[in-house]
Amino acid sequence: MSTNFAIGHEDSLLGDYMTTRQASLALCANLEVEDFGLQAMPDVSPPKWHLAHTSWFFETFILKPFVKGYREFHPGFEYLFNSYYNTVGAQYPRPQRSLLSRPTLKEVFAYRDHVDHEMVRLLQERNGNPWEVIRQRCELGLHHEQQHQELICTDIKYSFSFNPLYPSFGTDWQAPVTSESQGMNFLELDAVEATIGYQEAGFHFDNETPAHTHHQTGFRFADRLVTNAEYLEFMQDGGYVAPVLWLADGWAWCQSTHARHPRYWIRQDDEWYEYTLQGLCPLDPNLPVSHVNYYEADAFSRWSNRRLPSEQEWELVCRSFGLTPKYQPVLLHPQAADRNETVAQMFGHVWQWTRSAYSPYPGYRPARDAIGEYNGKFMCNQMVLRGSSCVTPPGHARPSYRNFFYPKDQWQFTGIRLADDL
Amino acid sequence: MSTNFAIGHEDSLLGDYMTTRQASLALCANLEVEDFGLQAMPDVSPPKWHLAHTSWFFETFILKPFVKGYREFHPGFEYLFNSYYNTVGAQYPRPQRSLLSRPTLKEVFAYRDHVDHEMVRLLQERNGNPWEVIRQRCELGLHHEQQHQELICTDIKYSFSFNPLYPSFGTDWQAPVTSESQGMNFLELDAVEATIGYQEAGFHFDNETPAHTHHQTGFRFADRLVTNAEYLEFMQDGGYVAPVLWLADGWAWCQSTHARHPRYWIRQDDEWYEYTLQGLCPLDPNLPVSHVNYYEADAFSRWSNRRLPSEQEWELVCRSFGLTPKYQPVLLHPQAADRNETVAQMFGHVWQWTRSAYSPYPGYRPARDAIGEYNGKFMCNQMVLRGSSCVTPPGHARPSYRNFFYPKDQWQFTGIRLADDL
Amino acid sequence: MSTNFAIGHEDSLLGDYMTTRQASLALCANLEVEDFGLQAMPDVSPPKWHLAHTSWFFETFILKPFVKGYREFHPGFEYLFNSYYNTVGAQYPRPQRSLLSRPTLKEVFAYRDHVDHEMVRLLQERNGNPWEVIRQRCELGLHHEQQHQELICTDIKYSFSFNPLYPSFGTDWQAPVTSESQGMNFLELDAVEATIGYQEAGFHFDNETPAHTHHQTGFRFADRLVTNAEYLEFMQDGGYVAPVLWLADGWAWCQSTHARHPRYWIRQDDEWYEYTLQGLCPLDPNLPVSHVNYYEADAFSRWSNRRLPSEQEWELVCRSFGLTPKYQPVLLHPQAADRNETVAQMFGHVWQWTRSAYSPYPGYRPARDAIGEYNGKFMCNQMVLRGSSCVTPPGHARPSYRNFFYPKDQWQFTGIRLADDL
Amino acid sequence: MSTNFAIGHEDSLLGDYMTTRQASLALCANLEVEDFGLQAMPDVSPPKWHLAHTSWFFETFILKPFVKGYREFHPGFEYLFNSYYNTVGAQYPRPQRSLLSRPTLKEVFAYRDHVDHEMVRLLQERNGNPWEVIRQRCELGLHHEQQHQELICTDIKYSFSFNPLYPSFGTDWQAPVTSESQGMNFLELDAVEATIGYQEAGFHFDNETPAHTHHQTGFRFADRLVTNAEYLEFMQDGGYVAPVLWLADGWAWCQSTHARHPRYWIRQDDEWYEYTLQGLCPLDPNLPVSHVNYYEADAFSRWSNRRLPSEQEWELVCRSFGLTPKYQPVLLHPQAADRNETVAQMFGHVWQWTRSAYSPYPGYRPARDAIGEYNGKFMCNQMVLRGSSCVTPPGHARPSYRNFFYPKDQWQFTGIRLADDL
Repeated sequence: MSTNFAIGHEDSLLGDYMTTRQASLALCANLEVEDFGLQAMPDVSPPKWHLAHTSWFFETFILKPFVKGYREFHPGFEYLFNSYYNTVGAQYPRPQRSLLSRPTLKEVFAYRDHVDHEMVRLLQERNGNPWEVIRQRCELGLHHEQQHQELICTDIKYSFSFNPLYPSFGTDWQAPVTSESQGMNFLELDAVEATIGYQEAGFHFDNETPAHTHHQTGFRFADRLVTNAEYLEFMQDGGYVAPVLWLADGWAWCQSTHARHPRYWIRQDDEWYEYTLQGLCPLDPNLPVSHVNYYEADAFSRWSNRRLPSEQEWELVCRSFGLTPKYQPVLLHPQAADRNETVAQMFGHVWQWTRSAYSPYPGYRPARDAIGEYNGKFMCNQMVLRGSSCVTPPGHARPSYRNFFYPKDQWQFTGIRLADDL
Repeated sequence: MSTNFAIGHEDSLLGDYMTTRQASLALCANLEVEDFGLQAMPDVSPPKWHLAHTSWFFETFILKPFVKGYREFHPGFEYLFNSYYNTVGAQYPRPQRSLLSRPTLKEVFAYRDHVDHEMVRLLQERNGNPWEVIRQRCELGLHHEQQHQELICTDIKYSFSFNPLYPSFGTDWQAPVTSESQGMNFLELDAVEATIGYQEAGFHFDNETPAHTHHQTGFRFADRLVTNAEYLEFMQDGGYVAPVLWLADGWAWCQSTHARHPRYWIRQDDEWYEYTLQGLCPLDPNLPVSHVNYYEADAFSRWSNRRLPSEQEWELVCRSFGLTPKYQPVLLHPQAADRNETVAQMFGHVWQWTRSAYSPYPGYRPARDAIGEYNGKFMCNQMVLRGSSCVTPPGHARPSYRNFFYPKDQWQFTGIRLADDL
Repeated sequence: MSTNFAIGHEDSLLGDYMTTRQASLALCANLEVEDFGLQAMPDVSPPKWHLAHTSWFFETFILKPFVKGYREFHPGFEYLFNSYYNTVGAQYPRPQRSLLSRPTLKEVFAYRDHVDHEMVRLLQERNGNPWEVIRQRCELGLHHEQQHQELICTDIKYSFSFNPLYPSFGTDWQAPVTSESQGMNFLELDAVEATIGYQEAGFHFDNETPAHTHHQTGFRFADRLVTNAEYLEFMQDGGYVAPVLWLADGWAWCQSTHARHPRYWIRQDDEWYEYTLQGLCPLDPNLPVSHVNYYEADAFSRWSNRRLPSEQEWELVCRSFGLTPKYQPVLLHPQAADRNETVAQMFGHVWQWTRSAYSPYPGYRPARDAIGEYNGKFMCNQMVLRGSSCVTPPGHARPSYRNFFYPKDQWQFTGIRLADDL
Repeated sequence: MSTNFAIGHEDSLLGDYMTTRQASLALCANLEVEDFGLQAMPDVSPPKWHLAHTSWFFETFILKPFVKGYREFHPGFEYLFNSYYNTVGAQYPRPQRSLLSRPTLKEVFAYRDHVDHEMVRLLQERNGNPWEVIRQRCELGLHHEQQHQELICTDIKYSFSFNPLYPSFGTDWQAPVTSESQGMNFLELDAVEATIGYQEAGFHFDNETPAHTHHQTGFRFADRLVTNAEYLEFMQDGGYVAPVLWLADGWAWCQSTHARHPRYWIRQDDEWYEYTLQGLCPLDPNLPVSHVNYYEADAFSRWSNRRLPSEQEWELVCRSFGLTPKYQPVLLHPQAADRNETVAQMFGHVWQWTRSAYSPYPGYRPARDAIGEYNGKFMCNQMVLRGSSCVTPPGHARPSYRNFFYPKDQWQFTGIRLADDL
């Protein structure tokens, strides 16, 4: 069985729906019932909750408003599985999601079946409804489900990491491709008046628009990601104890958490190991460093006498070299750079921190209904990440895609791309 | 199937062992796999952890030291399921017990089977070992298991209470016996030179000894527990907003938690309900108030112009009237007072807060090995509770039994017995 | 005695030095000895600490490196009065500054005298030193001192506000000019390719450079600040209890702090009052709302169907209309809009929140020595504010000036300017 | 000038009043104005607050109820200087007392003068009032003032200790008497039926009564306090990293605070120093260890194979040997044991932790008015200390005196007396 499906690969919305919904279950195929309830911090959610919430999304935004006589699966679920939509109503407290042993996993599966049954009928019939709105919301719901597929992976990795038995997520693991990494080279790009943002006709999130003119100065851009070996050098050079390398808030984070290495690195018997979705593995020096937060990425860049790229620079490189994500399978771990690529590892390995705060593009205005809460209200205190990761579902990412997390966050597959001024 | 077993009821240690171990599983018979992992605060533990830890107790204190060539079930379990025995080694952090999705429930059942198999062989063979030590430790292990049986009930009740679906613990529930409560009367006991502490020959915990002379002044002692109706009167009279009724620390607790009623009382549509192990029920005015902490009990007593009894007074009443616990089934909820009893509800309903701090008896000295950590190191900051509760296993309690919790604790079945000076 | 002095008004650096240093003392003329030690939260500092730290700045960055045989005033002060310069060394913990009853105020005055004596001699002699570096650092030190003059006012206001006697800061207070506010009008500015950043030859902070090209889309810009009356309308319309008006982090701030009005508003006997540097005053509806944080400003703008301006828009309006700050006296409280101005209240009343995160300009790179810690390491998690306030010393602000605070911060004089897309 | 006065030494209440009130000021004679505002944690209060609160006590409980036409000094002071008397009204938040720069020290002195003027007149006139109540309350007020004299010393020591300049409290310091300590011997006392509690006719606090019969088993009692040298031995033997020596709550305290030595011990250049009210001094091995909390005292006793005495044992030793406190001057630091005493250091050096929780004596019932809040509401979670310290005012302590603090508290002069079972 494969865990890899993609939206847009099928020739119909119905096909996309079935494929995407199925992919969420396939991802969890090797989890034990007990694993479905884990939540090791408020930022992560139990897999069971993800499975229920993504169904809630279709039920709330499509079935309830557009299916005449629709009967909700359970009256308590509107509250239990609402994530953050205040327009819809109050929400069960996020930090307590692991306390919801009921509904059981079996009941959540039944909830999914119920929603799927109704959705499939709706998508097959099509008639008598404002079809275009339904189509758009369904597409949004599928990309939303893909985002939660990525979260299922990152969240369970985080929760598993507290278990000294170091559980493995699944059996589809393939040893990461590795090869001795070559020196990092920098591409040079001249100043240019460019258009930034989504300009094509397909699906995209509202935060990628409006497309707008941006005056870009000349810059340098690394042809691959920073490796574990390079990051280790930074550590051995005292990177974590040299305040001048850090942003003020980063240094405060360092002091209060006593961080001294990337999130999942573990020192045992004088050797470095890394907790992966396959369990504990010896640290591979050639793979890209992962699970570093913005503060760590920024400090590393300062130690390197470089800086992080802006999100506009990242997107421009993508467009200049015509780079787009491949329909690659979900790999569960980042791989070494392919020496044959001019700019390697843009998609499919780790999200790349940019120096750009997550702000609205000029002219951006969120929708005024519940859907408007999807992206707009998070445009504060977070940083933009570009690219995609080894657990991003195929078909999900784009050159204009804007991911965003808090500077302190480490539990996503996040790494470092260096840049510099010309 | 019955959930009610008792130590000492069987004619042999082996019988007691099998009965008691089986009772732990029977208690959990109606739980879903997902329920076994719940831990809504650091003070409570997941049922699965209780099942594993009680097995760990036998493995650590009997099988490992006394069974030649014993092979531990899993090398990681010594760390994972050690509660607080520093003499044995480090412990997995208590607040994170819910993160142990592995070992799975099935694996914990296998662990129990493994330990039971070895224990039964040891108890059957008896030869070649320091039998008296084994016997004593086995007896201790069984009473220890009974304590965790009570905790399984109180802990799951606490964790379930955060679920707005208000799950029910089991199907053995029987509606509490209720009857209109009669006025509270006070027995009068004269001053006396008395012996306090365990003086018989059976099993007891070390904290119940040494028996010692105590000079008791005359006192009054209520013939039943305080009811929900009486507590409601205290609330309606502004009990929770009148600082003069409270201990200084109690008032601070009130202010910081915004407590305004007993832990599991819930106001819906202008009616009071109570969350019980059977789910949400209308509040029964005749049942004893439960899940109040020491601060609440003390404030109620001051509002009543009475006081709480000392632990010596409680024990003396027991001895004066020859009261001992019945082999009653675990009821899961306290019941109304039996009008025919001179002193009602001493055992089997709710633990009763005393005004006595949990301190060592004169001459008490804990054992210097790991077993010595069982009771002694907790003799600070806690208050003694006497009696037993509706979830105390039959055969567990005694007149000299000393239970102890922090003044702020509410998640046990704890209620109020009034007393006064003569 | 006047508290108003300005750098650049005098014809010499020496004159500027004496004027600016004197102004810090003049500001504190009406404080009691006891007031000099107040620190009501870690973000604010005691006036005494400000007076010492600004002297430390000259001692550390000019006297120690450039005056041969200079003897420091006290060996402990390098540690005690270092704010955040890790390059210089460790720092006394910021949250504990109020615990430094010693050195006494008298000793800090002596410290200032000592530093002034040495600085004046250096500025008079000029010879034998790298004069240009000294001149630049002295100028920086004076603008640094001006920033702390503003902080002396905002910090003592914050600390005083916890005293129910509502102390007054000083006697120079003049009743704010007020007049019934007129309707808010919006200027319209067309799209333009503009240069942003400092482009002239005078003093400026490094964060205002490099000047760079910015592609600006068309926008609307309010001709005055939002008033207390308008903000009150937002409150009365349920602004603080409507989650859809707020950023996600803003709503979380609202919930956890229970904020329901601007920081210094106080409800007494059914009337609104405002704590000012003069004490408690009835709320004046015509004055600009002040001491709102970014979340409140953003929510208000959404309620108004507008948005906050970007920092580039703010600067462009300034340049388009040739607006610069007046050498106005420090007013201690914002005033009503002057109806004769095309764009009113740009400088001298309250800092104006922009929607722009505080990020480096393209090509910005901080100095690699201690001076480089001045601005660069704060370019994360904060928002840019533009303009100046009623406690900004004359001569300090500029159209390109970038102030920055965290979105949650309320203790500065911060208000709301509305903008919109064309 | 001497800082040593005592109640009961004068031949009249008026004389006692003037002497005691004057002593509070004399204690602070060498403090700077800035020192009077220090409060380094919620548990301690600024000296200025102590001076105002003790005046508030006389004003609230004597002048307001008993002086016809009395005009309060300031209407805001009832709120500002109420410590914890809910019966009187609300209280300014304790953790913020250092924020009260106003009233100034000068104003608080004026407040004291005002209260003294009225009190002296009342004590001189005597007529037309319920004199006995006034006399009792005045006596209580004076002993209350003495308690705050002790707190002025311990609180300023705590607050000063955060200043790396290590300020000295005063100039009356005399080098502690020291002499090589001799081996610790244990007195043996047989079992006895004894009366515990205050039985004489003089002033005492309500918590020392009712006197009652106590059945005491035989015990051993150390003839001197534990010295710094002995405590150092415990430390060097790994006392702070051996969990088996500690109470469970004590070990948790150890882990969370990273405590490794008594509160004011400081390691510099491989030598131990101690912060004293005179400033930093080399640690004197012969002086009694001080500023250890209950957890440390208990752990030390377990390491010594001994235990702490009960409060009854301590009192019995006092009575058996006829020990009472001397009218010794306030020494500001504990001294070495006098070899000529049978039981040394019972009073005047450090308070001695007992194993007794602070509980009401049998039959104790606090007054139902505000005075009843003085002691009763603290009878929970605290431990009894017996004796008196080097900063207890002369005439304040008694054999039956019960001091009480939380087990975690270290900022009082608290030390260790060992005991054991016979």
